[in-house]
Amino acid sequence: MAELTAAEVARIAEGDLEGDGTLTLHGVAPLEEAGPGHLSFVAEARYHPYIHASRAGAVLVARDARVQLPAGMSAVRVDDPRRALARLLPLFYPETPAAPGVHATAVLGDGVVVASTATVGPYAVVGEGTRVGERARIGAQTVVGRGCEIGDDVVLHPHVTLYDGVRLGERCIVHSGARLGADGFGYVPDAAGLRKMPQVGRCILEADVEVGANTTIDRGSIGDTVVGRGTKIDNLVMIGHNCRIGRNVIIVSQVGISGSTRVGDGAVLGGQAGVQGHIEIGAGARVGGQAGVLGNVEAGATVSGYPARPHREALRVQAAVFALPKLVQRLRALETIVLGRGAKGAPAASGQTDGP
Amino acid sequence: MAELTAAEVARIAEGDLEGDGTLTLHGVAPLEEAGPGHLSFVAEARYHPYIHASRAGAVLVARDARVQLPAGMSAVRVDDPRRALARLLPLFYPETPAAPGVHATAVLGDGVVVASTATVGPYAVVGEGTRVGERARIGAQTVVGRGCEIGDDVVLHPHVTLYDGVRLGERCIVHSGARLGADGFGYVPDAAGLRKMPQVGRCILEADVEVGANTTIDRGSIGDTVVGRGTKIDNLVMIGHNCRIGRNVIIVSQVGISGSTRVGDGAVLGGQAGVQGHIEIGAGARVGGQAGVLGNVEAGATVSGYPARPHREALRVQAAVFALPKLVQRLRALETIVLGRGAKGAPAASGQTDGP
Amino acid sequence: MAELTAAEVARIAEGDLEGDGTLTLHGVAPLEEAGPGHLSFVAEARYHPYIHASRAGAVLVARDARVQLPAGMSAVRVDDPRRALARLLPLFYPETPAAPGVHATAVLGDGVVVASTATVGPYAVVGEGTRVGERARIGAQTVVGRGCEIGDDVVLHPHVTLYDGVRLGERCIVHSGARLGADGFGYVPDAAGLRKMPQVGRCILEADVEVGANTTIDRGSIGDTVVGRGTKIDNLVMIGHNCRIGRNVIIVSQVGISGSTRVGDGAVLGGQAGVQGHIEIGAGARVGGQAGVLGNVEAGATVSGYPARPHREALRVQAAVFALPKLVQRLRALETIVLGRGAKGAPAASGQTDGP
Repeated sequence: MAELTAAEVARIAEGDLEGDGTLTLHGVAPLEEAGPGHLSFVAEARYHPYIHASRAGAVLVARDARVQLPAGMSAVRVDDPRRALARLLPLFYPETPAAPGVHATAVLGDGVVVASTATVGPYAVVGEGTRVGERARIGAQTVVGRGCEIGDDVVLHPHVTLYDGVRLGERCIVHSGARLGADGFGYVPDAAGLRKMPQVGRCILEADVEVGANTTIDRGSIGDTVVGRGTKIDNLVMIGHNCRIGRNVIIVSQVGISGSTRVGDGAVLGGQAGVQGHIEIGAGARVGGQAGVLGNVEAGATVSGYPARPHREALRVQAAVFALPKLVQRLRALETIVLGRGAKGAPAASGQTDGP
Repeated sequence: MAELTAAEVARIAEGDLEGDGTLTLHGVAPLEEAGPGHLSFVAEARYHPYIHASRAGAVLVARDARVQLPAGMSAVRVDDPRRALARLLPLFYPETPAAPGVHATAVLGDGVVVASTATVGPYAVVGEGTRVGERARIGAQTVVGRGCEIGDDVVLHPHVTLYDGVRLGERCIVHSGARLGADGFGYVPDAAGLRKMPQVGRCILEADVEVGANTTIDRGSIGDTVVGRGTKIDNLVMIGHNCRIGRNVIIVSQVGISGSTRVGDGAVLGGQAGVQGHIEIGAGARVGGQAGVLGNVEAGATVSGYPARPHREALRVQAAVFALPKLVQRLRALETIVLGRGAKGAPAASGQTDGP
Repeated sequence: MAELTAAEVARIAEGDLEGDGTLTLHGVAPLEEAGPGHLSFVAEARYHPYIHASRAGAVLVARDARVQLPAGMSAVRVDDPRRALARLLPLFYPETPAAPGVHATAVLGDGVVVASTATVGPYAVVGEGTRVGERARIGAQTVVGRGCEIGDDVVLHPHVTLYDGVRLGERCIVHSGARLGADGFGYVPDAAGLRKMPQVGRCILEADVEVGANTTIDRGSIGDTVVGRGTKIDNLVMIGHNCRIGRNVIIVSQVGISGSTRVGDGAVLGGQAGVQGHIEIGAGARVGGQAGVLGNVEAGATVSGYPARPHREALRVQAAVFALPKLVQRLRALETIVLGRGAKGAPAASGQTDGP
C-alpha cells in the first residue's frame, strides 16, 4: 500500500478539493468501514445520506452532489467518482511487479519462445512451439498447449489451461481455472452410440479480453471460436464452439452461449442467461439475467424472460400473470351474472364452458 | 474400512438393538445394495417397505418406525438415523491420516510459516508471508497466494487457488478447483472501452465453511467479501465481490449471487437460483431452485419463481397460468353469449374488443 | 495436418465424386472461410444457398441435395455429411501421438501400476494403488487419488482431479478442470450448526463417457454415483451424489442434477436445465434448456419450462401467457357491457369483483 495526500488525490482525479489538502491517506474503504486515514467514495446519490455517519478522512463525490460533510472530513469533487477510483486505486495498491524470468521448475517444450521480460511461474507447462510475449505473466501451474500465441502483457493466473493452438491478444487477463480451447460438444449418432466429432478449430481472444475464474470457451469444431477486443467475461461462463463474440461485450457470471451463435459489439448478457445456438444477438442488445434466448435479438433491443421477449412486453405479461388470480375472480363474477348462480364454483363454470 | 459389531453400532449411535449384537459389520450400504456384512439405514418412512427385500445384516431405523424386519436382520433404533450415520461413518471409513510435513516439491515463498503438524502436498505453491495453521492440509498442486491466513485444521483439496490475502477460518474445507479471491467483475466505461476497476478487497471465510468443487468466490472490490461461520456452499456456485453471506447458510449447486448482496444467517438458496446485486436476503429465508431474486427478501420468507415472489403466491399464480387455456375457453363462452355468435372465433373476438 | 485428394475423400467417405479427383485438399473449413485447398461441407439444406459464394475446392453434400456448384468446385455426395466429416477429420488433423512413459516429474504413490503404453504428463500426481490402463494418457498436472482404476485408452486432460476410488471405463475422455468424486453436499443439522455427513461412496464412469471442462460429478454418499456407457457430458455440468445416469445420455452445458436422481438411457438434457433430487427421468426423455424438472418424467416424453411440463402443454400455456394482456382487454370489454360504464377502469372493475 502506498500513501497519497488529499491534495494529490484531487490532482490525480482532476477534482476540486474541499478541506485539508495535507491529510495523508493510506487506502480506500467503503463509507462504513473507513477510518480517518482512508479515502472513501460515493458513486450513487442514494448513498449520500451515509456520508454523515462515516469516519473517512476524505471522500470522493460527484461535483453536483448535495452532501453535508461531517466536521473534519475532506471532499474531492469529481465528474465521475467511479472513474476517479479506477485511476486512484492502482496508486494506493500498486501491484507487486513479477520478476521476469522462467521459474526453474517450469517445463517448456521444444521451440517455445518466451520474451525476456515475461514471467513463467513455478510448475507451469508450456507446449511445443508456443510464443509468449513481452511482459506476459504465466501463473503457477498454468498449462499452455502446443502452438499457442500469447500476446504482450497478457496475464494468465494460476491453474489456467490453454489447449493447443489458442491465441490471446495483448493485455488479455485470464483468471484461475479458465479453460480455453477445450473440445466443443459435438457427436454424430451411429450404430455404436454417439461418435465424437473431432474438434479441430481454434479459440481466439482478441486484445484486452478478460476471462473470469472457471469459465470455459471451447475451440471451434471446424473454423474458430472468436472473442472480440475489449470483451469482459465473468466467472463460470460457458461459450460454445464456433461462437463469435463481438467487441466490448459484457457477459455476466454463469451465462451459457451455445455453439455458433454470434453476439454483436457492446451487447450485455445478464447473469445466468442462456442463449440458443446458431442465432444472432445484435450489437448493443441487452439480455436480462436468467433470460432464455431462443431466437435472434435485434441490435439495441432489450429482452428478458423465458422465452426471451422484448423487455417491456415481458414486464407487461409478467404483471398480467401476477394479476391472474384476480382476473379469475373477475371472470367468475361475470359468469355468475351472465350464466346465473350455477356458474359460481370453478368446476361448474368450466363444465358450463366445455358443455354448450 | 473398519469393522464394528451390531452392539457397538447401537452403543455409538445411542440406539436400541433388536437382534444379534455379535454380528460383525464392515461397511454401510443402501438397502438395495447391502449384503449380510453391511449396516443399512432408512431415513424416511416412505422407504420402509424396501427393508423387506434388503439383504443387509443390520439396519438403522427411527425409534418409532413401524417396520417388519426380514428374518435374521438386526435393527438399531435411534432418534435420528441420519445423525446416527454421520457419527458412525467416520468409524467405518476412517480417513487415512496425512503425514505432516512439506513435500519436497512444494514451493514456499519468503516468510511462509507452516505449522509442524500441517501437510503441504506435492507441487503446492505458497506465496510470501502466508501462514498455515496446525493440522491444516494443503492438497497437491494447490496454489496459495501471498499473505494468506489458513486456519487450523483447514483442508484445501488439490487444485484449489487462493489469490493473495485470502483468510480461511478453522476447519474450512475447500474442494478441488474452487477459486477464492479472484477479481470481481467491475469496469468503468471510458473512451477506449471498458476500463478495469482494480479489485483490492479481500475474500474472508470464517470457521467451518465448506466450499464445493469449482466454486468461485471473488474478493471485494473495495472492502471485503465475507462468508460466515458454518456456511456450506455446493459445487459451481458463484459469489460476487463484496457479498456478505451469513452463518450456517446453505447454498446449493450453481447458485449465482451478484455483488454486494447480503444473505442472512441460516438462509437456504436452492440450486441454480440467481440473486441480484445490492440486495438483502433476510435470515432464515428460503429461495427456491432456479428462482430469480430481484429484490430484498424478508427474514423467514420463502420465495420462488422468476421474478421471485412469496412461494404461496408463486404457486397460486403458477396454477392459474397452467389453467389459462381453460380460462380462455370460459371467456370465449361468455363472449359468445354476451356479444353474440360473431365472437366465437378468437381473432374475431379480439377484433371486437379492440373495436368498440 | 495431412493432405488428401478429392478422390481419396470420396473413397473414405463412401461417397460419389463430382469433379476433379486429383484435387489436393489440406484441411476442412466452413463454407465462408474455405479456400481452394479446403474441403467444406453442408450438413443442412438451409445452408445450400451459401455454397454458391464459397471458394472451397470441394464440398461434402448429401446425396439428394439440390445444389448448384460454382465453376471448378468438386463435390463428394454422401449419405450423411456429418458422419462423413467425423470419419475424415482425424485423417486431415491427425493427433500428435503421445510418447508413452511417465514424465520424470510425475509423483507416483506406492503400488501404482502404469501400463507400459500409457503416458503420464509433467507434474501429474497419482495416489497409492491406482492402476492406469494401456495407452491411457494422464495430462500435465492432473491429480489422481488413491485406489483409482483408469481404463485402457482413457484420456485425462491437464488439471483434472480424480478423488480417491474413482473408476473410469475404457476410452473415457475427461476435459480440463473436471472434478470427479468430490464430496456430495450432505449435512445433518445439530446443536452446533450443520454437521458434515461423511461421503464414502464412489464415482464410477462406464466406458466411452466424455466429461466436459470444469464439470463436477460427486461421489456417492453411501453407495455410488454412476454414469453409463457412452454418455456425453458438456462443460460446467453438476451431477450430484448417488445419481445414476444411463447410457448414451446427452447432458448439455451447465445442467444441474441433484442427488439420487436417475436418468434413463438415451435421454437428452438441454443446457442449464435443473433437475430435482430423488426423481426419475425415463429413457429417451428430452428436457428443454433451462427447464426446472421437479418430478418424474416419463420415458420418451419431452418436457420444458418451469416447472417442467409436457412440451406441447408448456407451449400452449406460453402462448396463452403472452396473449394475456389481450385477454385482459377482452374481459374488460365484457365487463363494460355486462356491468356497465363503471367497470371500464381496471381498479373499479376489480373493486366490483371483490365487492358483490
